[in-house]
Amino acid sequence: MGLLVVGSIGLDDIETPFDKIQSALGGSTTYIALAASYFSGPVNIVGVVGDDFGKEHINMLEEHNVGLEGLQIVEGAKTFRYGCKYHYDLNVRDSLFTHLNVFEKFNPVIPDKDKKSSFIILGNIAPNLQLNVLEQLNNPKFIVCDTMNFWIERTYDELQNVLKKVNVLIINESEARLLSKEPNLIKAAKIISEVGPQYLIIKKGEHGALLFGENTIFSAPAYPMENIYDPTGAGDAFAGGFTGYLHKNRDFSFENLKRAVIYGSIMASFCVEKFSTKGLENLSFLEIHNRFIEFRELSKFD
Amino acid sequence: MGLLVVGSIGLDDIETPFDKIQSALGGSTTYIALAASYFSGPVNIVGVVGDDFGKEHINMLEEHNVGLEGLQIVEGAKTFRYGCKYHYDLNVRDSLFTHLNVFEKFNPVIPDKDKKSSFIILGNIAPNLQLNVLEQLNNPKFIVCDTMNFWIERTYDELQNVLKKVNVLIINESEARLLSKEPNLIKAAKIISEVGPQYLIIKKGEHGALLFGENTIFSAPAYPMENIYDPTGAGDAFAGGFTGYLHKNRDFSFENLKRAVIYGSIMASFCVEKFSTKGLENLSFLEIHNRFIEFRELSKFD
Repeated sequence: MGLLVVGSIGLDDIETPFDKIQSALGGSTTYIALAASYFSGPVNIVGVVGDDFGKEHINMLEEHNVGLEGLQIVEGAKTFRYGCKYHYDLNVRDSLFTHLNVFEKFNPVIPDKDKKSSFIILGNIAPNLQLNVLEQLNNPKFIVCDTMNFWIERTYDELQNVLKKVNVLIINESEARLLSKEPNLIKAAKIISEVGPQYLIIKKGEHGALLFGENTIFSAPAYPMENIYDPTGAGDAFAGGFTGYLHKNRDFSFENLKRAVIYGSIMASFCVEKFSTKGLENLSFLEIHNRFIEFRELSKFD
Repeated sequence: MGLLVVGSIGLDDIETPFDKIQSALGGSTTYIALAASYFSGPVNIVGVVGDDFGKEHINMLEEHNVGLEGLQIVEGAKTFRYGCKYHYDLNVRDSLFTHLNVFEKFNPVIPDKDKKSSFIILGNIAPNLQLNVLEQLNNPKFIVCDTMNFWIERTYDELQNVLKKVNVLIINESEARLLSKEPNLIKAAKIISEVGPQYLIIKKGEHGALLFGENTIFSAPAYPMENIYDPTGAGDAFAGGFTGYLHKNRDFSFENLKRAVIYGSIMASFCVEKFSTKGLENLSFLEIHNRFIEFRELSKFD
């Protein structure tokens, strides 16, 4: 059965030390779906945009075999817009503006044909919307969830209810510390895992990622990147690569989850090499495979 | 031929969120020598202390087969003393005081028998002292060097002269960025390597370490630590484990350098499990070996 992604779709203004762009395709759903599309298809999305959402974006997503039946296009309204500026070292960004627009009243409606989706990725949206999505689904086999500081701080209880239902939570370092109220990541992971998620992935940006589960830890290296042009969407690309790979081969062993973490890292590394979603739009299977080999060489010793 | 360590020896007051101790054994030389002593011996040290340096420290070092012929004990003077307090997350520390005492006029004199040492570890001391040490030596085969922000900021030119002569520079992330004036660690490593060191190791604390050399990068994981009691000396324990392992087997292949990085990481992980040097005082070869296996399992995938 299919892979369903629910989250935000937006148009971003992004400034990095290298360049700036306006009204570029963004949103968690977009990055997740594109990254997953290299492993498994169709990837079906549920989201909302306004009538300012360019046809070229629709076309590009369709070319990647992204199913758009769940995409609501609201006439006379504007797409979610976000603006940010990255600092010199790219690890910190200032939000410049957030115009929720159509996203403010987003009510995810899962198309009937997608209610039997076996794999779900809950992008970074309000926990009550994530719960709403899960309630519409018919017994999904594997649920992957993202969240962020904003929801941890404002909707802690709802988020806890989501965490009880998901197989994998993917968050970054600072989110893990905030969610667990514990600075040590290993302790933080135990605290979070006790709430519910069967597996926890903590993304550490330029330091790689940690996978926790089955009383085991896997430490994935980061791809050595000299030129990060735009970090936007890296975490979503990770979630898409991770879940897309698992959806493709349906092997839930810890060994295969490790590989999925590497494929997530690979898609994140491609994502940040170009602005907006450009780094995820024209990849070949050979490029992805070669980067897997590079990741393996990077951390191998005996 | 022998392994020689030159650096500071001190008595530390350390406060962490868990405990505080006063006048505990410290100094780069001490941690380096103890960590290296598990691989190779004797490890000979050159340093200076005052007559307040407890006999119990001398005895403990001798029990670890640390050669003390190069240890100057200045009568009527006090040992280098340092006090610091770690923040809640242990990643940041405030220096409370630094009393150089005998260390202010430290003039390292290499005993004649140690001038032919084949392996040298230059602990974190003034670059002109590091150069002074190298001038006294008779063609050392392998030179490992540490430094810190203080010397990068104040004695940049002298440090560059040191870097031209060393085989391995071991620094942490922030030092690498400061030394190279480049926030991206991969670019920073290239810039630093161009100055001279054949290999560069960037320690990333809870995120592991990177080894650069031979146009290759090795990413070593961090040991998952729930209980870090005292981070003091971790970097020195790394340098000691790394160099001690290489000194033992004299294999300078990149594959073996990778293993040495893991042994450095292992010794750092033991170091921080207890206050002061206690974590390095009573280890068994089996414990060290078992942790190597754990490190391998942590990052292995295929």
